[in-house]
Amino acid sequence: MYIIEDGRAPNPRRVRIFLAEKNIDVECRQIDINELDQKDAAFSRLNPLQRVPILVLDDGRVISESVAICRYFEALNPDPPLMGQTPLEQAVIEMWNRRMELNLLMPIAQVFRHTHPAMAEMEVPQVPAWAEANRPRVQEALEIMETQLAMQPFIAGDSYSIADITGLVAVQFMKPARIPLEDSLVNVGRWLQEIAGRPSSIA
Amino acid sequence: MYIIEDGRAPNPRRVRIFLAEKNIDVECRQIDINELDQKDAAFSRLNPLQRVPILVLDDGRVISESVAICRYFEALNPDPPLMGQTPLEQAVIEMWNRRMELNLLMPIAQVFRHTHPAMAEMEVPQVPAWAEANRPRVQEALEIMETQLAMQPFIAGDSYSIADITGLVAVQFMKPARIPLEDSLVNVGRWLQEIAGRPSSIA
Repeated sequence: MYIIEDGRAPNPRRVRIFLAEKNIDVECRQIDINELDQKDAAFSRLNPLQRVPILVLDDGRVISESVAICRYFEALNPDPPLMGQTPLEQAVIEMWNRRMELNLLMPIAQVFRHTHPAMAEMEVPQVPAWAEANRPRVQEALEIMETQLAMQPFIAGDSYSIADITGLVAVQFMKPARIPLEDSLVNVGRWLQEIAGRPSSIA
Repeated sequence: MYIIEDGRAPNPRRVRIFLAEKNIDVECRQIDINELDQKDAAFSRLNPLQRVPILVLDDGRVISESVAICRYFEALNPDPPLMGQTPLEQAVIEMWNRRMELNLLMPIAQVFRHTHPAMAEMEVPQVPAWAEANRPRVQEALEIMETQLAMQPFIAGDSYSIADITGLVAVQFMKPARIPLEDSLVNVGRWLQEIAGRPSSIA
């Protein structure tokens, strides 16, 4: 079993942090997405969506999509739980993970993909007006995060979860996207310092 | 326990079909998203993301995000399983549900939101160039679906799953988005006829 990824991209990092939190060791093989390795024929056979990361199982079956890979390991290695145990916990964590993913990481990624010169070959066509339309969405999602983190220590409640991983990767991806994190978001700042200080965050 | 939704929108329909497949009856209260009811103060307190559907529990807690709502009911009522049982099934279904959602439904929704006159107040600003950039992505996702459905009866394998629900809602949302479904996609056509013929599809 091994993972194919590009160590610099945000989605593979979500999986590495998840595995580090669970103390699971999986070989990570690198490809270079800036060289468009993910679009070559060999990789496309493994994932027709041409995205990293993917998990290749011993029988050759492939799991793509970061959260699907995480769910596989959550089911195999439930401790520590990062996706909830009771029905309500599972639903609340799924909700917050999706909010962090669809309403924070994705708008940040749209700003990055549609403005950064290095993305010109990967994001065709770049639509600068779409990047601009996403900037206020990033701030709205951060405000929702700020309100939430004023009430509880972690994104989805009293315990660390996959939603914190997605949130961390998203907020730290603001730097390459050249979106400043406002100092007024004091609870996001407090949370960020804490989550970024966990050993898993260097994964 | 009740759901707040708009019966015409695609995401609430995913939840209604899911519940119908499980034979679970939940009261659905309607709001009108064309009137921007989802942005009023009362609804925003329930879901700061201002989106439908939401599930309001008896203790007042709220679950938003369609898939999070589905996961809650899957955990409470595991039969029939729609999100997989073994770790591998769970991962494969999550992968295909995400492919249907992020790579098919979402590009179709982008075409709809950024071209349809009725969306001018909800999608601010509309970016027509972004709609155009999404058109080829819809076709790419349909091609991947076609290849998959040539090999197996359902999107994620031998059994009906949440991935078929998301796929059905996505493909049927092509009509309001004014994207034609090409006749050459024979396996998608065969699958669509079968899935749309299930009693749950009228939910």
